[in-house]
Order: sequence, then structure tokens, then C-alpha cells
Amino acid sequence: MSKNALPTQQEDFSKWYTEVILKAGLAEYSAVKGCMVIKPYGYALWENIQKQLDTRIKDAGVQNAYFPLFIPKSFIDREADHVEGFAPELATITHVGDTKLDEPLVVRPTSETIMYDTFKDWIHSYRDLPLLINQWANVVRMEKRTSLFLRTTEFLWQEGHTCHATSQEAEDETLRAVHMYDEFATTCLAIPGYVGRKSESEKFAGAVYTTTIEALSKDGKAIQAGTSHFLGQNFAKSIGIQFQNTENNFEPVWQTSWGVSTRLIGALVVIHGDDKGLRLPPAVAPYQVVIVPIHRTEEEREAVMEKVVEMKAVLKDIRVHVDMRDHLSPGAKFFEWELKGAPVRIEIGPKDVAIDQCVVARRDNGEKTPVSLNDIATYVPTLLERIQDQLYTEAKVYRDEHTFTVNSYDEFKQHIEQQDGFVSAHWCENMECEAIIKEETKATTRCRPFDMKDEEGKCVRCDNPSHRRMLFAKSY
Amino acid sequence: MSKNALPTQQEDFSKWYTEVILKAGLAEYSAVKGCMVIKPYGYALWENIQKQLDTRIKDAGVQNAYFPLFIPKSFIDREADHVEGFAPELATITHVGDTKLDEPLVVRPTSETIMYDTFKDWIHSYRDLPLLINQWANVVRMEKRTSLFLRTTEFLWQEGHTCHATSQEAEDETLRAVHMYDEFATTCLAIPGYVGRKSESEKFAGAVYTTTIEALSKDGKAIQAGTSHFLGQNFAKSIGIQFQNTENNFEPVWQTSWGVSTRLIGALVVIHGDDKGLRLPPAVAPYQVVIVPIHRTEEEREAVMEKVVEMKAVLKDIRVHVDMRDHLSPGAKFFEWELKGAPVRIEIGPKDVAIDQCVVARRDNGEKTPVSLNDIATYVPTLLERIQDQLYTEAKVYRDEHTFTVNSYDEFKQHIEQQDGFVSAHWCENMECEAIIKEETKATTRCRPFDMKDEEGKCVRCDNPSHRRMLFAKSY
Repeated sequence: MSKNALPTQQEDFSKWYTEVILKAGLAEYSAVKGCMVIKPYGYALWENIQKQLDTRIKDAGVQNAYFPLFIPKSFIDREADHVEGFAPELATITHVGDTKLDEPLVVRPTSETIMYDTFKDWIHSYRDLPLLINQWANVVRMEKRTSLFLRTTEFLWQEGHTCHATSQEAEDETLRAVHMYDEFATTCLAIPGYVGRKSESEKFAGAVYTTTIEALSKDGKAIQAGTSHFLGQNFAKSIGIQFQNTENNFEPVWQTSWGVSTRLIGALVVIHGDDKGLRLPPAVAPYQVVIVPIHRTEEEREAVMEKVVEMKAVLKDIRVHVDMRDHLSPGAKFFEWELKGAPVRIEIGPKDVAIDQCVVARRDNGEKTPVSLNDIATYVPTLLERIQDQLYTEAKVYRDEHTFTVNSYDEFKQHIEQQDGFVSAHWCENMECEAIIKEETKATTRCRPFDMKDEEGKCVRCDNPSHRRMLFAKSY
Repeated sequence: MSKNALPTQQEDFSKWYTEVILKAGLAEYSAVKGCMVIKPYGYALWENIQKQLDTRIKDAGVQNAYFPLFIPKSFIDREADHVEGFAPELATITHVGDTKLDEPLVVRPTSETIMYDTFKDWIHSYRDLPLLINQWANVVRMEKRTSLFLRTTEFLWQEGHTCHATSQEAEDETLRAVHMYDEFATTCLAIPGYVGRKSESEKFAGAVYTTTIEALSKDGKAIQAGTSHFLGQNFAKSIGIQFQNTENNFEPVWQTSWGVSTRLIGALVVIHGDDKGLRLPPAVAPYQVVIVPIHRTEEEREAVMEKVVEMKAVLKDIRVHVDMRDHLSPGAKFFEWELKGAPVRIEIGPKDVAIDQCVVARRDNGEKTPVSLNDIATYVPTLLERIQDQLYTEAKVYRDEHTFTVNSYDEFKQHIEQQDGFVSAHWCENMECEAIIKEETKATTRCRPFDMKDEEGKCVRCDNPSHRRMLFAKSY
């Protein structure tokens, strides 16, 4: 075994996770506790995610802006639930140089309070609504345990914040955002999610309710892939964002906030990765195709490179990387690009050139196919689409096969203990009962999918009446 | 005069500056001292700057990455000049929640120390060089006096950081970066700059030398529009970034760093703005063309909007905004888009529709031209190019006419006192003499342009021998 070999997922999933991220060069730990360095390969992935999500955000009429990194401590205190949720995680600045600040500043853990303090000056009448703002930024929530991408003190994200004249409009926007994330996750990340509503105890600190996408990691744990919150008038009332309606009366606005973060990269890893490394969906892969030229003599090199240049030209709309490194064998390169999850690898050597072909290898299923150089221009784009679909289908089959409908607490506990995936169970919707389940099994409520039908039953733990099922799982 | 009217530049340039930014909706002050809110119109401008600069950075083989916001205080202390330069401006975090940190963290004022601590683990042999990394990020340097975009505690920027095997390569990269900024400023921002080297006292804290682009504001002050630093082995030695060269010996790498920030938006304002407001270069303007439909009756509205839709379709490669607001008169809209600096405004009303034309108004010179709707598709792109060129030419003529070659301290003082622009003067290159000039006149050395020929003379202040001129000015 090479010194670069990964542990298998079966052996130790959590070790596999960290190792694949480090060895594929997505990110690494920094000298600052809890903070990571996002390396070029990981950042290119994030840029592709950003670009495609940003287009969707703008198409919905939302405008990007930028608000301060720092928030006066007193702002956070304005919304009671909000401060309770965030206080223990806040990084506080007390000094500049040698001078003590009059009021401590906190580094934003999320921007509701600082943005809404500004929104109150932007909004006067119904004509100023809806106000649809998004921000791409870094945020800080101090974490005791660190996991690259999944739990870091600083992370990158986007946060949408909207204000509306009516409750209905704000609820519609809350749903629009979570469905936008779902469409993006499906189309670009090849991630199938359960889209639904969080329980009271799992909602965002300050929201009326939270909607979410819950996906399933290959180790049977749920992973959140985007949340959208209906804030009602909670912040508007405490901060004082009012508008004059068409009848000239003043009323607080109705609000939403929604976000996804670099955690999505963690989701890609745990949902698609295998024992050989990452398997990146073509839509977001930094390199969709990696060409490995094979040659020994200078003459061979020239012949091969001529064809490589031609291939690059016909594949100009695709992100192609040619691995020209001289000090590595083709085998070492294959190994590395499998680890790094490039969706398609093209090998071409003198024997291929002689018959005007190359060998196309799929990362998702390992298939290798000889392809005529004349066909490359149509073959590769179609293959990339097929791989994108295949990754989604595999993840969907896995997710569906690992969602268990149970009717007893024994079954429930057994699946959770084995970390089998999602468990769909009747639950009385009582927060104390939820807390006991969490205490006894380590499972939390993940969401009630919007497309899940109501159904009468009895709470799996306490036998009290239940009107609908809930998805539970251990989670990241 | 409308309540929205600006003071003229002549009356009070600094008030004009702040007012135009506030009224055009580029940015505003936030509740946090020294920090600004970048509003959607200002942020769209920044996104256009980012996009076009990012392409140039990537084309040069530089890869984006992301490093932590926080830096252990001890890291900053490693490079003696660096800590001296930045210590008074540092925001320091001592607590998380209620817990005191073992070591205080500072919010990055620039990322040399945190990045290079990582680079030392990335670089082992000459094969790992050059290492070319860029980061788009927010940075914090506490400022006592605030000026939107020009001097804010938090600002957005990109910082390039490169490591090389030889001094020559690093010096070449230093120059490549500053010339890239110059080409970008010229082509996209229509900003002509003097590209050259900073004096010892004005260089970056920790650099061997600093190169810069110095542009000229319409009020006669210099404004820095990008810097690129040759760091030599200063950081490499203090932090320990070594590589094994082809002879198997270990030596410290040679480094550069370079950056531009949201200050460029301030530069656009003070270089191109006029008494009516902003004049944005088409290459970066959020909307290159604003169409103002004019109609009273529903019938007129339908006829006009039909043509507007056609125009939008033929101008699909251009950033076009149609101002559909019903509660504003066309005159109010013209006024607003002049203030906001949209390069081209198209007016179209029923009389225009009747003869298949529209009226095209240039923001740069106020010219209004009737244009046949059949010609719009070719007329507008050409006009945008012409406006881009015109803005550059105007700024260049202004800059050249406001650069004075002087041979006596009296002339020097007179031009500086009148804030006439750049003064090219002989100077002995003695830091004490430079400090006295600054003390006596408030002028600082801006740069010695690379294309300025050596010339024997006497220091304008102390009469000591001088071998070359230097550009001085008051500055932002």
C-alpha cells in the first residue's frame, strides 16, 4: 500500500473523512484553533458553488451587498432568543492597539442584528418592499471540536435577508429560498435532500420556524445542506423596522433569512466519496477532465502533446487540466486524480495516438473506454452529464434505502444505534419528549418533509397521540 | 435646487465626495465606528472590479485560496518592521463567550504572517516553486478618521502572495503585479497612474521595497490605486520558509505580496466624478445603459414598452436596466441616473416610437443624440467604448496638466499649498529631509516612476546632490 492510501470508510469513516480532505488538498488545519486553511483545490470548488448559486440568487431579484464584520455587543442582545443561541460562541473584541473600546464588538456569527439596524433606515413605505439582500461573507462561531468544513470556528457562507409587507409574502420567500437550495443541491451538487420544516427546538435562534434540506452521509448520519428561516416580525419588532402601508398605517415588516456555507463541501465529501477518495460532481469539480499524457521519448512526447493540444481545443467549454508533471509516473497521477475526485480522466500514449484514440476513465464507476479522438468533442460533455446524473441517482438510492419507517421505540433505537440513516417515526411534538429521545439515543429531529402526508399514530416513545411522522437521525 | 442636489466640487470637495457616495447609493456609514455598509449599487461595482481583476490574476497562474481571519498575536510580532507598522491598528480578541483565550488573536490587518506560517509546510523543494496564491478577503485596520471607501476600519481587498526560488523571479513578479494593476486601471477603471517605486519611509512594513500606482484626484490629491511589494527574504527568514534547491542546499524563499482594495471605488469617484455626480466607466458600471421609458396613457405605455423589450433583446451582451418606476417623473429619473453615473441613458417616448428612434444621452459629456432603433445594436457598444476612452483621456490630460516640474522649494511649496497635483522635484533621498518636507508642506513622496529618467540635480529643500526626481503630493 502506498503511504498515501486512505483508511477505508468501513474501517473509520471519520478518519477517512479528514484524511481524504487533507490528501486531496481541499483544506487543512491552521495555526489558529478551530480555523482552517481552504487550499486552492478546495477554494476552486467553493468558487464553482458560489458562481452557480449566486446566479440563482440574482435571478430571484436578490441583490448582493456587504455589511460590517463587527457588531456592537448590545445589538446581539436585542432579540432575546438570538442572544441566548449565540452568546457562548461569540468572539469579543475589547481592545484596539492599546486602547480599550467603549463598547465591546463581537465578530459576526450571523448578520441579522447589524443588517436590520440598517434596514430600518432603508424602509419607509410599502414602495421600499420587498427588500431582498444577500451577502457573501465570513462568519465566526467559536467551536470546541473542529471538523474541516463541517465544524470550524470561521466559515464562509452566503446569508440572504429579506423584508416583506405581508406574512404570506415572507413565508413564500422562505419556501422559495429552501427550494432554490434544493434545486441547486440536486442539479449542481448531485445531493438529494429531504426538504421540510425543523422542530421548535431545532429552529434558528430568533425564527418563527426554520426550513431545511437534510441529506444523508454515507456513514448514516444526517447532514444539513441549507436552511431558510421565517422570522415573522420578531426582529422587526425588537429592532423597529416599520413601513407605512397603502392605508398609511405603520406596521413592522415580515422577514426571512437563509444561508448555505462551506459546509456544503463537507457534504459533497461524505455523500459522494469512496475508499479511493473524492468523487466530485462535474457541475462543481475544479477540473472536470484531467488529461494524463503518457510518453517516454522526446519523439513520443511531441506526438502525444500534439493530440493533447487538439483535445484541449475541442473541449474548450469544459474545465480541462493537463497533468504535465515530469517527475511522476502515469500510475501515480491516476492515483492522485482518483483521490482528488476528477470526474473524467483521459489517458493518451503513443499507442493511442497511432490509432487516433484515447482512453476515457470515469471516476464514479471506474469504467475505462477507448474513444476515437474524432468523437471526443461530443463524447466527453455527454459523459459528464451522465456522471452527474449517476452520482445523484446513487446518492438517492442510498438515501431511500437508508430511510426506515418504524412503529416502535425498539426499532427506532436499533436503527439509530446502528447509525442506519433516517428514521421516520411518529412523535408527539413535545419538546421534552424530543429531549429524552436525544438523551437516550443521540438522535435529533431532522425535519418533517413538506411532501410527507399527515397520518394518525402514537408517539414512538411516549405513546401520546401523533398526527404526523418526523425524520430522526444522528447528525453532523 | 432639488433637495438631492450636491455641493459643487469647487465649493467643498470633501463634502461633495461623501454626499455623492451617500446619494448615489454606493455606501453608507454603519452603526459600528469606522465601518461602512456597501450598498447593492456599490457592491455591484465591486463585483465587476473583482470579476475582471480575478480573471487577470488567474491568467497569470495565481490560484485563489482562503486563510483564517484570526492571527495569533505572536505571529505578527515575528517580523520586526511588520509589527511596528501594524500594532496600533490591531483589533484584538481576548474572550470567547465568557472564556478568556490563552493567547490573544488579532483580526487580520494583512495576511503575510498567517499565510507564510502555512507556506513553510507547503514548500520543500524547488519543485514546489513558484507558489502563487491570492485571497479575496476582508481586513481590519482600526482608523481614527473615516472616509467611505478611502479610509475605513474594515475593507475588502485581494492580497496576492508569492514565493520564488530566486531574487530575480520575485522582483519580476513584483513588477508583473503592479503592471497588471496598471493595465487593469487603464483598461477597466479608465484611471491613468504613475507606476513606480515608493521611498524607504513609505514602503510596506516588512518589504524590501514597494511599487505603486499613484493616480490623481480632481482635487489635486494623489490616491494610491494598488501596491506590489518585493519582500526579499525578510519574512522567509523570520518565519522559516526554506526550500531545497537543485544543488540540494536549503535556502529561504524570495517573496512578494500585492493588493488592491475597495479603495479603488473611492478612486473612481474622485477621478471621474463631476458636479452632477458619478461618471462610471462602462467596463465596471453596474448598469452600462439605463432605459427610461416615457408614457402617459396605457396605449403609449404598450407601444413604448414593446420597443424597450426589443432594445433589451438586441443589447443582450450589455448590462441594461429599464427604470420602470411609476411614481417618478422622467426628469427625476434622469437626475438620479446622472447622480449614479450610468454611462448611457436611453429615453424613448411615443414621439420617438412613431419615427422608430430613441434618444441616447452620454453621461460623460451630456451629449444627446437621436438614434434609429435599427442602429442601436451597433451604436451603443461603440458608444460605450468611446465613453470608456474619453474618461481615460480626460483623466490623463488632467493628470498631465497637474504634474509640475519644479526646481525650487518656493515653487514646490506654492504648488503643494494650492493642492495643484503632483510635483516632480529633485530630492536627496534622505529620510530626514523627506520628513521635514512633509512637516513643512504636508506633501509626501508618492513614487519615482519607472519611466522617469535619471537626472543630476540638487535636493529642492537641502541642496544636497540628487540623482533623480521624485513625485510629491498631498494624498488620500
